[in-house]
Amino acid sequence: MKIFQQQVQISRKKRGFHLITSAILEACPFIKELKSGMCQVFIQHTSAALTINENADPTVREDFETYFSKAVPDNDPDYLHDYEGPDDMPAHLKASLLGSSVLIPIQQGAFALGTWQGIYLCEHRDKASARNLIVTAWGE
Amino acid sequence: MKIFQQQVQISRKKRGFHLITSAILEACPFIKELKSGMCQVFIQHTSAALTINENADPTVREDFETYFSKAVPDNDPDYLHDYEGPDDMPAHLKASLLGSSVLIPIQQGAFALGTWQGIYLCEHRDKASARNLIVTAWGE
Amino acid sequence: MKIFQQQVQISRKKRGFHLITSAILEACPFIKELKSGMCQVFIQHTSAALTINENADPTVREDFETYFSKAVPDNDPDYLHDYEGPDDMPAHLKASLLGSSVLIPIQQGAFALGTWQGIYLCEHRDKASARNLIVTAWGE
Repeated sequence: MKIFQQQVQISRKKRGFHLITSAILEACPFIKELKSGMCQVFIQHTSAALTINENADPTVREDFETYFSKAVPDNDPDYLHDYEGPDDMPAHLKASLLGSSVLIPIQQGAFALGTWQGIYLCEHRDKASARNLIVTAWGE
Repeated sequence: MKIFQQQVQISRKKRGFHLITSAILEACPFIKELKSGMCQVFIQHTSAALTINENADPTVREDFETYFSKAVPDNDPDYLHDYEGPDDMPAHLKASLLGSSVLIPIQQGAFALGTWQGIYLCEHRDKASARNLIVTAWGE
Repeated sequence: MKIFQQQVQISRKKRGFHLITSAILEACPFIKELKSGMCQVFIQHTSAALTINENADPTVREDFETYFSKAVPDNDPDYLHDYEGPDDMPAHLKASLLGSSVLIPIQQGAFALGTWQGIYLCEHRDKASARNLIVTAWGE
């Protein structure tokens, strides 16, 4: 077994949910070297997240933003932590609800995703910066 | 270290939460070959999920269905994506809230789960099909 | 590639969100031996969880408790499962919303966490016991 690791930077995105499967594959050619393995994509931030969901219809990603903005509202008067504005604490909460990484099997040098699965970068800040990811893949 | 990988199909289930720990173990005898390792179970769908929770009392699984159907309601007029009916978009949202995989340590050829832990297949569609899982285990 | 595995016990905590990054690193000196690898921390319980979030301001952790106690209320009359009190079923639900493990890249013998990331033990029971974790690390 061998292991590969690489930092990948995703350019600044607007608040919402964005497909990044192609960006990961392009930045990580070593995925093609594994016949049987695993790949983790990890985000080094606490106000953005990663998840796997529907890769075809953009309205799914719009509905994600609508749902999470209702379920974890900005400006809840109960929040104590608001140094960086009304989207600060909700961004942290959404990050933990969705998770800081995805873990995907590799088969024959490709992600063993279902037909409709893609990787989402979940950007929870109104004014975000670029986001750093660490991609690690291991296997045979 | 070595790695094993296998596709496992879980037969069609009704909407709700279903224990599948035994089905995974039966389909993946290679787990017994690892003294120290890891096992990932990944679901190749965006309207069902996997999680780890209480393995004994069926009312826990009923309460999961009740909770998630309230927290992510069918028929929310805000949903744009409803091609496949009122359970379509909520199924995608629940899939990301719960996650598309579980990752479990292996010790002495068995899952190192706590006494009360089991793997749930979380079926979010009213009329589901069989579900494809990819099980990957690695270690020594 | 090599793999290390160790049980770590975290002493009884009050209900809420607690930073345990240092406790994990102290209990697992083998992390320093990996130049490129992965580390999973797994909790063997269904009424507590693990997540990664902000490691600096204690009010973030207070806001986590406030949010999750509102989003998954104690004493919901819909719960069927309440053997162990009004915090029993909500603890199970929060455990699955947050997840039973975190998976962190290792670079040069250290967690490749972002500047503001730490590991939270999420304790959902009013009267908890100590919690058992299994830490597994693998790599080169």
